[in-house]
Amino acid sequence: MDKWRAATFIYRRLLKHSSISNHPPSRNFNRSFTSGFAYNYCAISAPLENLAGNCKQQIGYRNYATSAERNPMFSSVNSEDIVHFKSILGEKYVIEDEDKLDDANTDWMRKYKGSSKLMLQPRTTDEVSQILKYCNSRRIAVVPQGGNTGLVGGSIPVFDEVIINTSLMHKIVSFDKVSGVLVCEAGCVLENLISFLDNEGFIMPLDLGAKGSCQIGGNVSTNAGGLRLVRYGSLHGNVLGLEAVLANGTVLDMLGTLRKDNTGYDLKHLFIGSEGSLGLITKISILTPPKLSSVNLAFLACSDYTSCQKLLLEAKRKLGEILSAYEFLDVQALDLVLKHLEGARNPLPPPMHNFYILIETTGSDESSDKEKLEAFLLHSLESGLVSDGVLAQDIQQASSFWHIREGVPEALMKAGGVYKYDLSLPVEKMYDLVEEMRTRLGSAANVIGYGHLGDGNLHLNISIPQYDNTILAQIEPFVYEWTSKHHGSISAEHGLGHVKADKIHYSKSPETDL
Amino acid sequence: MDKWRAATFIYRRLLKHSSISNHPPSRNFNRSFTSGFAYNYCAISAPLENLAGNCKQQIGYRNYATSAERNPMFSSVNSEDIVHFKSILGEKYVIEDEDKLDDANTDWMRKYKGSSKLMLQPRTTDEVSQILKYCNSRRIAVVPQGGNTGLVGGSIPVFDEVIINTSLMHKIVSFDKVSGVLVCEAGCVLENLISFLDNEGFIMPLDLGAKGSCQIGGNVSTNAGGLRLVRYGSLHGNVLGLEAVLANGTVLDMLGTLRKDNTGYDLKHLFIGSEGSLGLITKISILTPPKLSSVNLAFLACSDYTSCQKLLLEAKRKLGEILSAYEFLDVQALDLVLKHLEGARNPLPPPMHNFYILIETTGSDESSDKEKLEAFLLHSLESGLVSDGVLAQDIQQASSFWHIREGVPEALMKAGGVYKYDLSLPVEKMYDLVEEMRTRLGSAANVIGYGHLGDGNLHLNISIPQYDNTILAQIEPFVYEWTSKHHGSISAEHGLGHVKADKIHYSKSPETDL
Repeated sequence: MDKWRAATFIYRRLLKHSSISNHPPSRNFNRSFTSGFAYNYCAISAPLENLAGNCKQQIGYRNYATSAERNPMFSSVNSEDIVHFKSILGEKYVIEDEDKLDDANTDWMRKYKGSSKLMLQPRTTDEVSQILKYCNSRRIAVVPQGGNTGLVGGSIPVFDEVIINTSLMHKIVSFDKVSGVLVCEAGCVLENLISFLDNEGFIMPLDLGAKGSCQIGGNVSTNAGGLRLVRYGSLHGNVLGLEAVLANGTVLDMLGTLRKDNTGYDLKHLFIGSEGSLGLITKISILTPPKLSSVNLAFLACSDYTSCQKLLLEAKRKLGEILSAYEFLDVQALDLVLKHLEGARNPLPPPMHNFYILIETTGSDESSDKEKLEAFLLHSLESGLVSDGVLAQDIQQASSFWHIREGVPEALMKAGGVYKYDLSLPVEKMYDLVEEMRTRLGSAANVIGYGHLGDGNLHLNISIPQYDNTILAQIEPFVYEWTSKHHGSISAEHGLGHVKADKIHYSKSPETDL
Repeated sequence: MDKWRAATFIYRRLLKHSSISNHPPSRNFNRSFTSGFAYNYCAISAPLENLAGNCKQQIGYRNYATSAERNPMFSSVNSEDIVHFKSILGEKYVIEDEDKLDDANTDWMRKYKGSSKLMLQPRTTDEVSQILKYCNSRRIAVVPQGGNTGLVGGSIPVFDEVIINTSLMHKIVSFDKVSGVLVCEAGCVLENLISFLDNEGFIMPLDLGAKGSCQIGGNVSTNAGGLRLVRYGSLHGNVLGLEAVLANGTVLDMLGTLRKDNTGYDLKHLFIGSEGSLGLITKISILTPPKLSSVNLAFLACSDYTSCQKLLLEAKRKLGEILSAYEFLDVQALDLVLKHLEGARNPLPPPMHNFYILIETTGSDESSDKEKLEAFLLHSLESGLVSDGVLAQDIQQASSFWHIREGVPEALMKAGGVYKYDLSLPVEKMYDLVEEMRTRLGSAANVIGYGHLGDGNLHLNISIPQYDNTILAQIEPFVYEWTSKHHGSISAEHGLGHVKADKIHYSKSPETDL
């Protein structure tokens, strides 16, 4: 399709497509579709001042994926412990059933598996505190678990740790319509919070594919990023307060609801992204933005990666305050989705292009927002940055566009084995790694790149028919060394879990590698 | 002025006033006009894991405003020390001159005074490291100092601490136009960064009255809030990386430039707002938003506080993504400004109203933004929320509106003594405190309220002809107890300094009061 035809094509679509009012596009996938987050490991711990030392030990301990062995300092659970847990929680919430434990011991990718014999389901902060205090005194290791949607093996036991599952702590404590501050328990499922806020005329500043299962406690513990970060920033900016229980049972009340508080150290930030290693988060206070009335979504094609970058700059400049997502996937990713994901359909006619971009805008003025996006797209097409594109005409269509982007992890799972890397890199270098990896691995693997381009976050995925250590040796440590050399991060948003616990030195200096 | 006349009035103004393109309103005041922030105290310290314990001692030590005495464990500077400092920095940067020291020993309000005999002016991180390592070995107390614009006595010595002034560390290290990430040294004056970015087509996410003198290192150390927080959020969301030197000379490299990095504890957040008590910040990496082309500013009058609150909710909803400031001052504050601030003029004709609001919008579409703001203002006038108002027609007029809001601290200084309180409170409760204080103090004092209503941040100021302990006893601890009772913060954005160091318990629970 030459430029003129493409312009006609996009123009026709622009004319017939209206903006999507009142609702953000629905991306209501269940857990198996997720690229989500969950809690990490919290072993026997000690008062806050000793945490740095303990953490190394914990992370070392949980790293069975490489060479860790169970630390003999931890006790095994015995029948007296069970009796005690029942006295705290009641019989019903002390789970020894094998089927239930099998689920809780296994991560959603079915890649990692623990062998816990016990799951506890507290309903209150006080119960969490009692459990941890007891475990601390008995030297019983624990792992907090939320929605178990993590990708780095952080939400399941490594050995026989007691699983403390937060699913029953799902109350909304308060919502203030003046300030937009929501206070809720850690076990609230992200999607339930989104629905609750939608009724109140607000949105969560966080949205991600795993929302149907992942819990806000896990989101905060892993500093989840997701699709709205480019607009609303990270959880460090949005979480106003936390309540957390240290491993010795001490409850830390940091549950402020104020937008500003400069009295002493802001300890809650240590817990955001600490993956459960400092304590178990029980309540969260979070600032939620008002829901805006106009949401638009475009699905675009670019012929090369340079155009994707230039388009990002243009979008930041021209769409400015209404830009709410800028996601990309390469043709290899789209191909995989079209092959393996049920109901997926390419929104654009042939031929295939090398890159695809999703641009979402969210604003308060339907006609002006749409005009702005249309003008931006036409200009991008005329200047050659965009080769083809379409604007969603209704929520269903928007949902089907998002389904493609968010369906990449599921398509990968269906295609066979997959080595997953979640990297932060300077935007201009990001795709070089995908290409180098492709050259390196040749026909042995299908290398795909997609992710949150607007945040400099690449999801590099290497799809293989089956797991193969020779291929893995070609990928690692190359991928980490490359990332380190370009001052990137080896975990942008998934956390370290146990998979990357011993690789932190690629991204942190020795003085800050606690 | 009745509603119809008011409507005609505002409409006339709307017609003749154009939006202010390409430039945010200039608020180029010098230091004496500021309501700014600076570093706090950093005494002899130890490795990071012991900081919590040390900090209590440091804060206790610096608190001379109440009952602190100089801790005899600290050495006095002797001639050998001076020789050593000269060997690190060169003669020129070891300041013993009395006039220069007098300035550096005194805060800008001239309320607090130290008695340091020595100021050091390092130019590099390595020099800072050598100084701190030496001071640590000799047990010499130090205080980091930036622009010395703080309001809580945090940037000056309490006794004879060595002043480490960061003014010569003012290099811009790098700026990446693709990501908008600026890396600079701690001594960069905020206004210089704003000018630099303006040329590049970007803005700082932080703006405050003290910008002509305050330094970015001090801003970050005190987690400065200011005028753009309602739009761009706190520094915890915008600062991407830091370099800091611990009191034993260890350089912590946390100077990442990535938007996302979930590898281990994000230690930089501990330093943001720690007021120099954990170390001295030497470099900052910060995410800067693109400059948007259209800025509009309205100066409005409301008859009561309830209307101010309702107008805020309406502004959040209707102006949505373009709202960039929502500031308020009461009639007592405006009165004081008109009396004491040179060049200040009421933008609105008589009669006086009880409250005044500044609403700023910043967006990428001049005509649509202006239309949106005009429609919002007309609707607010018709519904009675706003009693009168005017839109700035050019940069000069916008600047004169900002001059009123930002001139309150200077007007207060000129009016006599002032007891200043910087509080975070739930928006709906905020003004009750001003009224209760007014009733409590009667004619003995002029109680005024102003501040960042959009962030729930009240600047409560009590203006008196001269300082008077009987009046102070009427104010404190009442003001802190009231704030604590309503779950507020006794320091929203100014920090604790030494003035409020022993009052942290009003806002923090014992477990988090480190």
